[in-house]
Amino acid sequence: MRCRKCPKKAIIYMPEHRLALCAACYSPWFLDHTERTIRKFKMFTRRDRILVAVSGGKDSLSLWHALHALGYEADGFYIDLGIMGSDHYSEQSKQRCRELSERIGRRLHIVRVAERVGAPIPEIKDLTAREACSACGLIKRYLMNRYALEADYDVIATGHNLDDEVAVLFSNVLHWNRGYLARQYPVLDEREGLKKKVKPFVYFTEKQTTVYALVNRIAYVRDECPYALGATTLSYKDLLAQLEHQAPGTKRRFLDGFYQIRALFAEPEAAALVPCSRCGQPTTAEVCAYCRLIEHVQRRRGLALAPADVNTSQSSLKQVLVSDSE
Amino acid sequence: MRCRKCPKKAIIYMPEHRLALCAACYSPWFLDHTERTIRKFKMFTRRDRILVAVSGGKDSLSLWHALHALGYEADGFYIDLGIMGSDHYSEQSKQRCRELSERIGRRLHIVRVAERVGAPIPEIKDLTAREACSACGLIKRYLMNRYALEADYDVIATGHNLDDEVAVLFSNVLHWNRGYLARQYPVLDEREGLKKKVKPFVYFTEKQTTVYALVNRIAYVRDECPYALGATTLSYKDLLAQLEHQAPGTKRRFLDGFYQIRALFAEPEAAALVPCSRCGQPTTAEVCAYCRLIEHVQRRRGLALAPADVNTSQSSLKQVLVSDSE
Repeated sequence: MRCRKCPKKAIIYMPEHRLALCAACYSPWFLDHTERTIRKFKMFTRRDRILVAVSGGKDSLSLWHALHALGYEADGFYIDLGIMGSDHYSEQSKQRCRELSERIGRRLHIVRVAERVGAPIPEIKDLTAREACSACGLIKRYLMNRYALEADYDVIATGHNLDDEVAVLFSNVLHWNRGYLARQYPVLDEREGLKKKVKPFVYFTEKQTTVYALVNRIAYVRDECPYALGATTLSYKDLLAQLEHQAPGTKRRFLDGFYQIRALFAEPEAAALVPCSRCGQPTTAEVCAYCRLIEHVQRRRGLALAPADVNTSQSSLKQVLVSDSE
Repeated sequence: MRCRKCPKKAIIYMPEHRLALCAACYSPWFLDHTERTIRKFKMFTRRDRILVAVSGGKDSLSLWHALHALGYEADGFYIDLGIMGSDHYSEQSKQRCRELSERIGRRLHIVRVAERVGAPIPEIKDLTAREACSACGLIKRYLMNRYALEADYDVIATGHNLDDEVAVLFSNVLHWNRGYLARQYPVLDEREGLKKKVKPFVYFTEKQTTVYALVNRIAYVRDECPYALGATTLSYKDLLAQLEHQAPGTKRRFLDGFYQIRALFAEPEAAALVPCSRCGQPTTAEVCAYCRLIEHVQRRRGLALAPADVNTSQSSLKQVLVSDSE
């Protein structure tokens, strides 16, 4: 198969766009589409300071690389989950983020869960009743938002792709989770202590972000997180892949159709956000879920902290942050 | 495996209910559940005259049988589509309906599409741009509603089962078809010339209605309609079967969750119904889709009818109805 734009041999065929491209023509197409999504949803401009949540995987590293290539002011933020396993998952992931940071000359901020929460993810998983993915998601959202606030970034960008978004939408629809449906959108505006959050890759498939990483020689961690294996959203992805195979474009239409009617799910009285009495971050409860998690983990570890100590452990994230470019 | 209610050998295990039952205990369980669904949705009472749409398949014949067994006043209504094929689909279907009519001593009303529309379904399919299933559905809904009105039935009951309903819901969600979503419910109240419509089997799986038919020795047509083979909803059924297998009860939860939030899809200004200028049945247009279909079919067949003839062909359905019990 030949490239649509030049006589070279195509390296990718995208049935949903009926488009074949060669390695040289792929990146410009990919960057152009990224830019279009950013504008369509008014995500950010070249005057904004963007904090990209990087995990070391293909999506988030491609996003960081693409935003930089498009001339945006984008720094990286890596959360060290402390997941070891046979392949030193977290160490390898951090290393891939460092490599890209050096290559594009942008700062990479690193924060360690073990330091902030008092234990790494595998231990938190054993100490709490929560699923590993649920605690991990809570911690990542919290640390990300808090750092963006303290370091004065304008917007947080994450690398969620079309396959991720459609699988989550599918799950939210199967369970008719009205609150989650109301909030599933590629741009969530800043409100009461919650930074603006955007997903510029929401229209790219996993295959497309992978090819961008390969074409641009971005080294990334290929393994899934060991705790995510067998997670239900992965099997939803299989089902959705069958639908897409049968009728290319189904995923995109499903997602775009949802965006059109999403407002129907808005709850008339969304719970008001108030500052957490411990850490000051926005929450709907007296003490936020993150502070309750910390307390629980520390209690279970036998580290009975006096209230003053809790406050200390909640001191500004920026002060204790390990910044690789410093 | 043993029956949950007696020491006999079970003939069915229903993982979503964690329930195994023998042949003797199955029918009482099935009838009890039918009754519960009828009451839950206030479908009808023993004072109502019910018209059951029967196709000759397991669902609709089981429904007719079950309503009669529960002491409801239920007659059958069979629409002869004129589909022949190698196995004389429509002839066989009609024969199965007649057998049950005789067995339970309830009237079976029969109307022929060829007589009403001017051509049988296979010819209509060739003469129109519509999909066979789309034209067939339109014709069936029209004839059913018109007969129920003219013969003064209180409610129309159809045999749609859980697998049907969930597949349709899945399709409506994938396409975010707001109007269809707003109207997908086991009971649609009477309004402006549209009879009340109910689906008492909405919580039974295909397997459960099949076992009811087998246990009660109801002869039914086993073949799918030849035109429905390969229809998309069939492949949605495969996908949903995978989900159900993985997590029994998924289909029921998906459907029930939808019923909870369905009102969100209601359109603030649903189109008003007015009488069709040709036939007087409710429509949102000047001439209803059924009359337009008839006109199209008759024009394409070269039978240019004078307006008077059209009116004749639109005369009361009851007068031309073939009623088997007469």
